[in-house]
Amino acid sequence: MTSIEAVDGSAAAPRRHGVHSEVGRLRKVLVCAPGLAHRRLTPTNAEELLFDDVMWVENAQRDHADFVNKLTTRGVEVVELHDLLAQTMAIPEAKAWLLERKITANQVGVGLVDSTHAFLDTLEPWRLAEYLIGGLATADLPDDFRPPAVALAREQVGAREYLMPPLPNTLYTRDTTCWLYGGLTLNPLYWPARHDETLLMKAVYRFHPDYADSTVWWGDPEQSWGQATFEGGDIMPVGNGVVLMGMSERTSRQAITQVAAALFAQGAAEHVVVAGMPKLRAAMHLDTVFTFADRDTVTLYPRIMDAVRAFSLRPADNPAGLDVIDEGSTAFTDVVAKALGLSALRVIETGGDEYASERQQWDSGNNAVALEPGVVFTYDRNTTTNTALRKAGIEVITIVGAELGRGRGGGHCMTCPIVRDPVAY
Amino acid sequence: MTSIEAVDGSAAAPRRHGVHSEVGRLRKVLVCAPGLAHRRLTPTNAEELLFDDVMWVENAQRDHADFVNKLTTRGVEVVELHDLLAQTMAIPEAKAWLLERKITANQVGVGLVDSTHAFLDTLEPWRLAEYLIGGLATADLPDDFRPPAVALAREQVGAREYLMPPLPNTLYTRDTTCWLYGGLTLNPLYWPARHDETLLMKAVYRFHPDYADSTVWWGDPEQSWGQATFEGGDIMPVGNGVVLMGMSERTSRQAITQVAAALFAQGAAEHVVVAGMPKLRAAMHLDTVFTFADRDTVTLYPRIMDAVRAFSLRPADNPAGLDVIDEGSTAFTDVVAKALGLSALRVIETGGDEYASERQQWDSGNNAVALEPGVVFTYDRNTTTNTALRKAGIEVITIVGAELGRGRGGGHCMTCPIVRDPVAY
Amino acid sequence: MTSIEAVDGSAAAPRRHGVHSEVGRLRKVLVCAPGLAHRRLTPTNAEELLFDDVMWVENAQRDHADFVNKLTTRGVEVVELHDLLAQTMAIPEAKAWLLERKITANQVGVGLVDSTHAFLDTLEPWRLAEYLIGGLATADLPDDFRPPAVALAREQVGAREYLMPPLPNTLYTRDTTCWLYGGLTLNPLYWPARHDETLLMKAVYRFHPDYADSTVWWGDPEQSWGQATFEGGDIMPVGNGVVLMGMSERTSRQAITQVAAALFAQGAAEHVVVAGMPKLRAAMHLDTVFTFADRDTVTLYPRIMDAVRAFSLRPADNPAGLDVIDEGSTAFTDVVAKALGLSALRVIETGGDEYASERQQWDSGNNAVALEPGVVFTYDRNTTTNTALRKAGIEVITIVGAELGRGRGGGHCMTCPIVRDPVAY
Amino acid sequence: MTSIEAVDGSAAAPRRHGVHSEVGRLRKVLVCAPGLAHRRLTPTNAEELLFDDVMWVENAQRDHADFVNKLTTRGVEVVELHDLLAQTMAIPEAKAWLLERKITANQVGVGLVDSTHAFLDTLEPWRLAEYLIGGLATADLPDDFRPPAVALAREQVGAREYLMPPLPNTLYTRDTTCWLYGGLTLNPLYWPARHDETLLMKAVYRFHPDYADSTVWWGDPEQSWGQATFEGGDIMPVGNGVVLMGMSERTSRQAITQVAAALFAQGAAEHVVVAGMPKLRAAMHLDTVFTFADRDTVTLYPRIMDAVRAFSLRPADNPAGLDVIDEGSTAFTDVVAKALGLSALRVIETGGDEYASERQQWDSGNNAVALEPGVVFTYDRNTTTNTALRKAGIEVITIVGAELGRGRGGGHCMTCPIVRDPVAY
Repeated sequence: MTSIEAVDGSAAAPRRHGVHSEVGRLRKVLVCAPGLAHRRLTPTNAEELLFDDVMWVENAQRDHADFVNKLTTRGVEVVELHDLLAQTMAIPEAKAWLLERKITANQVGVGLVDSTHAFLDTLEPWRLAEYLIGGLATADLPDDFRPPAVALAREQVGAREYLMPPLPNTLYTRDTTCWLYGGLTLNPLYWPARHDETLLMKAVYRFHPDYADSTVWWGDPEQSWGQATFEGGDIMPVGNGVVLMGMSERTSRQAITQVAAALFAQGAAEHVVVAGMPKLRAAMHLDTVFTFADRDTVTLYPRIMDAVRAFSLRPADNPAGLDVIDEGSTAFTDVVAKALGLSALRVIETGGDEYASERQQWDSGNNAVALEPGVVFTYDRNTTTNTALRKAGIEVITIVGAELGRGRGGGHCMTCPIVRDPVAY
Repeated sequence: MTSIEAVDGSAAAPRRHGVHSEVGRLRKVLVCAPGLAHRRLTPTNAEELLFDDVMWVENAQRDHADFVNKLTTRGVEVVELHDLLAQTMAIPEAKAWLLERKITANQVGVGLVDSTHAFLDTLEPWRLAEYLIGGLATADLPDDFRPPAVALAREQVGAREYLMPPLPNTLYTRDTTCWLYGGLTLNPLYWPARHDETLLMKAVYRFHPDYADSTVWWGDPEQSWGQATFEGGDIMPVGNGVVLMGMSERTSRQAITQVAAALFAQGAAEHVVVAGMPKLRAAMHLDTVFTFADRDTVTLYPRIMDAVRAFSLRPADNPAGLDVIDEGSTAFTDVVAKALGLSALRVIETGGDEYASERQQWDSGNNAVALEPGVVFTYDRNTTTNTALRKAGIEVITIVGAELGRGRGGGHCMTCPIVRDPVAY
Repeated sequence: MTSIEAVDGSAAAPRRHGVHSEVGRLRKVLVCAPGLAHRRLTPTNAEELLFDDVMWVENAQRDHADFVNKLTTRGVEVVELHDLLAQTMAIPEAKAWLLERKITANQVGVGLVDSTHAFLDTLEPWRLAEYLIGGLATADLPDDFRPPAVALAREQVGAREYLMPPLPNTLYTRDTTCWLYGGLTLNPLYWPARHDETLLMKAVYRFHPDYADSTVWWGDPEQSWGQATFEGGDIMPVGNGVVLMGMSERTSRQAITQVAAALFAQGAAEHVVVAGMPKLRAAMHLDTVFTFADRDTVTLYPRIMDAVRAFSLRPADNPAGLDVIDEGSTAFTDVVAKALGLSALRVIETGGDEYASERQQWDSGNNAVALEPGVVFTYDRNTTTNTALRKAGIEVITIVGAELGRGRGGGHCMTCPIVRDPVAY
Repeated sequence: MTSIEAVDGSAAAPRRHGVHSEVGRLRKVLVCAPGLAHRRLTPTNAEELLFDDVMWVENAQRDHADFVNKLTTRGVEVVELHDLLAQTMAIPEAKAWLLERKITANQVGVGLVDSTHAFLDTLEPWRLAEYLIGGLATADLPDDFRPPAVALAREQVGAREYLMPPLPNTLYTRDTTCWLYGGLTLNPLYWPARHDETLLMKAVYRFHPDYADSTVWWGDPEQSWGQATFEGGDIMPVGNGVVLMGMSERTSRQAITQVAAALFAQGAAEHVVVAGMPKLRAAMHLDTVFTFADRDTVTLYPRIMDAVRAFSLRPADNPAGLDVIDEGSTAFTDVVAKALGLSALRVIETGGDEYASERQQWDSGNNAVALEPGVVFTYDRNTTTNTALRKAGIEVITIVGAELGRGRGGGHCMTCPIVRDPVAY
């Protein structure tokens, strides 16, 4: 497969967006570099922003750049979110649309709307994108844009006194939107600290010329979704008309059933396999304990996956638009294998003794992302899991996880595939 | 004052609703008895539902009934929320309106909407009101109303697997709506565990004949309010065109400035005094550390009130509709006294030594609610604070707090005045 | 049974101390009334002192006095710890012995030893006992006894700045010492907040004339015990030469094996049945989930007891002095029944639905203490469990738990039997 | 001073041990390489073992080896604890002494003493030292050494089921013992998870020929010290007869006054300056917010150091052996400067904006250790603080902190100076 030339989007006709498997050739992917949002992280606010520790931001940027470089070198077109958002903000209509939704009395308070809007209007698109992702503190307002009402903000109090909140979890682009075959979902995320991410993506998908004609299967950040929360880390379009969905702390049955019904109604999928997971921070998403490394090969953490209960959702001619089948005691991996037409999945477990495997799962050891069948990216630190993958014939390309991993996400979490080929089953 | 006959709302013309002070004669009040929602509380879910401990529900009901009885005996018309909601649900249009908003795919999941709605339709109004407040677990669905999709709910997992969530904090009716002079606010509450309370109140204020023509100054539970959260425990219409507003963990400047602007624009108030509070669970609302006991007398907890910074909001002819004045080093009590035209407030501090006063503040020792000037209800357990109030000439009527207080609220929190007379300043 | 006269210890020959069952006639018992130590509890320090909430101390005292009165009325001799310690402190040798061990440079700091000792020497025995149990804060030192070194104590900082720590968990006399048949253990307790309790009891058992000749099987608070921690709430001398021991968060195998070996070596027991418990705060001791109500009847909380694994320890002629037998899949209740020569135990589970039973276990619903076979004391609030006991023919005498239960202990925890008759098996 | 040759301890007469300043030429230092203890760390047990996150142990070892290499290259004699302990364990008397104290019924349980001792006796000294530091799990016992009593250990339960606990905080050798001028202290550490460290050091100082004649000013791990806890991170022998002592969460006034009195009585010091610190995990020791970079230069974190209150302790002819002087509002740095005979200290604050400085303090940005006046080691990640130091003329040698810093300690924490020259004041 010689696809390097196709990456030059300007020369060739743009490739049609769509993700048709978990391990087919990755052709185009969305990532988000660490930046201002991570420079806002401190020991005091990190937990509220869903990070376990603070980062050395410069090194996180270096390690992320290396990841991007390795992707690019291997022929993947990499789209970076600050750039993408800056391109979008350069479109006056898009900028007006987004600021109208971000700079409201509900978010910044009466008395600060006009001055905040006026300040943001002075910025170049890239700098505006940086604040949209990195957050705008009341203290960031220049003197010329500080009305008396800013006194109420009591700036020492912290995270709530942002005019726009920092969004450090944009690092994990996987969660906010999901390409499922030929269309995508705009996901309502579980934690309030992440809600605003989806609105940024809606601006891109509504206004950016490369994306404006995309099919949206489900989701709209301008609506309320209640208990229906959905995060891409739980979702895998594995091919063969099948989508895997982890039902977890963050992805609810209220959302899963809606998305399944929407996919079925639009003919986008024929079978959703639900992984009913225990609710644990260590297993916040399905992809923290289970990912694909090859067409028929997965890496998983047995201590959690053994407790998963599988369900199948199928199209049905009833008001819900689907049937729910409890798979009972059949192992999740067997349900998946059967859905793909395989006799079984080849399983590579987290490596090391009891201590090391717990540590490696925590450090995203099972969070592999495939470049193509049998070639995956993982963090360097999970040496025994990486060795196990290599002994099984998988090519493992490592990236440095010392800083990037502190929000509990690895290569799979940091990538939102936009174009990925199917594989044959 | 001979007001008993006027309480008989059926005989006389209905009294016009409105709350014109914190200590004028209380004539009509909304409360909510403990019930099913509190029988849902367990050691495992209590914290998520904002309670510090579980309750002996039968005794909490006994103690609440005694509180109601003492109010009634002293001539107050007491409205109970289950009753009020049942009366509302007896109106077919109201029932349809509310269930359409509660029983959605976002809340109960695709595949459970029809059966849940069908089950609720079988219920008498009071039983329906009980489930609306007490929560409907998937396990509560009778066999006839259990479609296959219920399997996904994995009922053992707990609080999330409610079709309608339990709302035990309805016990604290003070927070959900506020009568401020002649109109009211429908408040967006801070914690997700309380959001649904306001929708129930909107149904009442939209459909119940006694309330349907009320003026709403601000707020609508069908909209998103973002950072603009507002809770009645922070709000006090003290008279003289003044409203006190605690800016706390739960009541934000984003909401305070909106409500102030709305009150000013509608001529409902002329001055909002903001108490900028530290963000602590012990001081979650202004009324947990500061309440009125008489026209010029307050009971307060000095260790927190000494750290409050005061601001004044005043009507202004600018886009925000208000001016913000930082009161600097002037004590909050002095700002309040001046706003009321008093030379000073008489202050009665939490009683007991360092240990006891911390304990009594925690146990709602400063959370008094006035029946009329100089007559207040408090919990029995705060004996030294109660003694201090009595020595200052205040009549103190006690209620039992052993169970009712476990959600950290006292008499002020448990009452939402609907009619209260002004006092002269 | 005509034992009332024998309770009058002054008239008759003193009864020989010893506890020969869990349900035989209770004749003499040690309790500790709430007091100064509980007046030290605040929302800030409660957790550190192992309480879930603060207490209304006066009501806790009232409810405890009622418990004592009911015991006395039913013919039990009740010894109160403040009184017992005051009697001990009236003996000059005992007072010198205890103060020498409490008022050291390690506990109060160089520069405060002499003045603290001098102050305590001025006190009457009962007042001294009150400070020994209730704690002595640096702020309690009168001006005459405050050397310059007190400045280092920075008194605002809290619990660490005690010259003698408050010991509110003395309320639960069950834990500190255990009478096991004809002798007792002086227990090394798990939490540092409770360590000093055992030293007080050693003073009593060494110097008080009624107790000075007691046999001590094991334990000495003047030694370090490392991982060997042992709490009476886990220990039950059920008769027939058998002792049950919960292996829990607080009672370790290191201690259990030592005590078993000591009992076997001294001929005090022939069989120890170990309940290997999950480590949870809700199940901190065996007696929080399993107690006896009659000769062959227990009340238990199935959700925890079903996960218990049983082991038997038996005397052996090897260096350890015991054999360890893993009982495998045999239920704990069946191992106990067999050890007592019964075909089975009659089991009364915690009452109520899923919510209520979790709540009642938390509120000490299974923490019954027997007066005699078939007669138990429990808290009033666990109504459905009490009803289940009564339906099974058990006489249930209730005590008020609203305040006393906030440290997570009931009647069994609050009593340390000193004389209890055997029952026949 | 040309001292390289003198480092060769074998060629020259052994240098007399002693630490005479914080910044004089460092000549001999004790460190401890990461190893088995850190391979025991998991997300589940890390907090209990005082680590904020798990480590990539191999990289921590690499980074530590680099630190050692840089020290050695610059002429410092580096002693590694595993080696030192192995040399000690090669002495039969030392091995018998230590195992007799570690392998007791209190620590391993009756029934496991003999087999555990027997297993350890089979090991080579270095392997024994590794288990002494890294912990011995019951699962580590080979089949030949597993008696039936091992069943009680229920090996899945975790950290408590160690026969010898892992001691990962030995990485921070600074805390366990302190050389103060010509003698040392054997410190009673605050957290139970660290208690056993001091016993290992006592074995070294009692039996190892290079150390056996050392003067111990204070401390003995075989005694109980109650509230008297003392950690080297709080202690700095700055020269001129002065010792700085942080009074913190971990170092108590009970210990400080004892050590001061012991130093004064033995003529080892004339003045102790106490830094009364707030009790915060971020400021667990004085050296996490204040260290010396040159004779008159310190790096400090102002947000915490501004809240420190200073006290002076001086020799006195009274029973305590010392006078306590409250320095009132005089800044700690001014008290220190005066004690050293300087007009003032030059202060270099943590670098970066509000976010970055909080992050850098957390990441040990102020935890510098001096090689000689004006030359310090720090972590690489605190770039702005390092730049500030360099701009002030300090030579900064960096070490990689990504893994080593996860227990919240930097270069100062990881070094226990054994020989350091005085500086002139």
